[in-house]
Amino acid sequence: MKGIVLVSGGMDSLVVAAIAQKECDEIYFLHLNYGQKTEVRELRAFQQMRGFFQPKDVLVVDVSYLKQIGGSSLTDRKLEIKDFAGDDGVPNSYVPFRNAHLVTIATSWAEVICANRIYIGAVEEDSSGYPDCRENFYKALEKAIDLGTKDETKIEICTPIIHKRKAEIIQIGDKFGAPLHFSWSCYRDNEIACGTCDSCVLRISAFKEAGLIDPIKYAIEIDWKN
Amino acid sequence: MKGIVLVSGGMDSLVVAAIAQKECDEIYFLHLNYGQKTEVRELRAFQQMRGFFQPKDVLVVDVSYLKQIGGSSLTDRKLEIKDFAGDDGVPNSYVPFRNAHLVTIATSWAEVICANRIYIGAVEEDSSGYPDCRENFYKALEKAIDLGTKDETKIEICTPIIHKRKAEIIQIGDKFGAPLHFSWSCYRDNEIACGTCDSCVLRISAFKEAGLIDPIKYAIEIDWKN
Repeated sequence: MKGIVLVSGGMDSLVVAAIAQKECDEIYFLHLNYGQKTEVRELRAFQQMRGFFQPKDVLVVDVSYLKQIGGSSLTDRKLEIKDFAGDDGVPNSYVPFRNAHLVTIATSWAEVICANRIYIGAVEEDSSGYPDCRENFYKALEKAIDLGTKDETKIEICTPIIHKRKAEIIQIGDKFGAPLHFSWSCYRDNEIACGTCDSCVLRISAFKEAGLIDPIKYAIEIDWKN
Repeated sequence: MKGIVLVSGGMDSLVVAAIAQKECDEIYFLHLNYGQKTEVRELRAFQQMRGFFQPKDVLVVDVSYLKQIGGSSLTDRKLEIKDFAGDDGVPNSYVPFRNAHLVTIATSWAEVICANRIYIGAVEEDSSGYPDCRENFYKALEKAIDLGTKDETKIEICTPIIHKRKAEIIQIGDKFGAPLHFSWSCYRDNEIACGTCDSCVLRISAFKEAGLIDPIKYAIEIDWKN
């Protein structure tokens, strides 16, 4: 079994990489730079994970057209990255249809290297409310991939943590010995996590729920016991 | 109605642009450079079409990662572009899952500019046998787009020539006054079409069947009456 893992540099994809390594004979890492504000920091996290997992091959691709297209606070400097405001529809950090780009690029690569699995760390319920994180989207995309590639190409999209809560994901990572200290989640800063953006707030509360202390540094003081 | 048209610089997308202009209030053109050998020539054809149709906006994106990924004679200089060998499975000019990239990028753009149609000049039967030109693939992809974008985003993938024969496509273009002399089909050369690659052979025979003379120049002599 050959699996391509979409590795962003965040915690979810890190844990999925650990799962893929257990399930596959060979793993391959794919990372996308799309002009997001934390691109350099995420790429560093990716390279640290690469060193840890030693995938058979890696592909780092530039999809800066996502920045050209815009529409997201993650890529457009004119749009502010808002503080977490609870469950209030699709947040402005949503990069339109981004995960489809990830899977589409992985599919082209999979067809060339004859990989049969694509792993993505999408999380449906306990996440930021992005529409491209829903399980039924991946099921539909898998069907489209089956119809749009060669008859002999059989690709399964694996979403092993899609129904997990963030706290469970951290516990799985901890159990599998995934290097959680390499992962980067903050949408806003490049050196020290801000602790207040959507992504940081979710991460911190998940570590608390998991009963663990996040090994990364935050710009604000955090009481890990409450 | 706002429509994004995928304009490669070839004849099929040219004719689809002419159809979209009749069906939509506003048209937008999207062109992809993916390191194909005829990239410069196709971009020139695209710019000529842009001048002719005057779309509201254009987006030219670089997806050179398709060249990084390889697997096609169109992007890999080590692979020879073979002469047309008839109906013999998927030819080596197939760029793995390329059209999915086109539609995925168009979808992200559509979500930002609130376009509701994506036009693509895919041709199923009378074409080169690429799996990403099948109608059922586009139906499945449309479903995936519906599930993977915001609830208020409604995007239709329009494939108006998918069941047309090449000769019919030329006749439609001729009827609509599409500037066929701007279109570029050859996979091999940048100045004068070779007349012998898959794409040239199909084009020449289609013009003959349509009872028209192709206005572009070929490197070989062609008897348009037989």
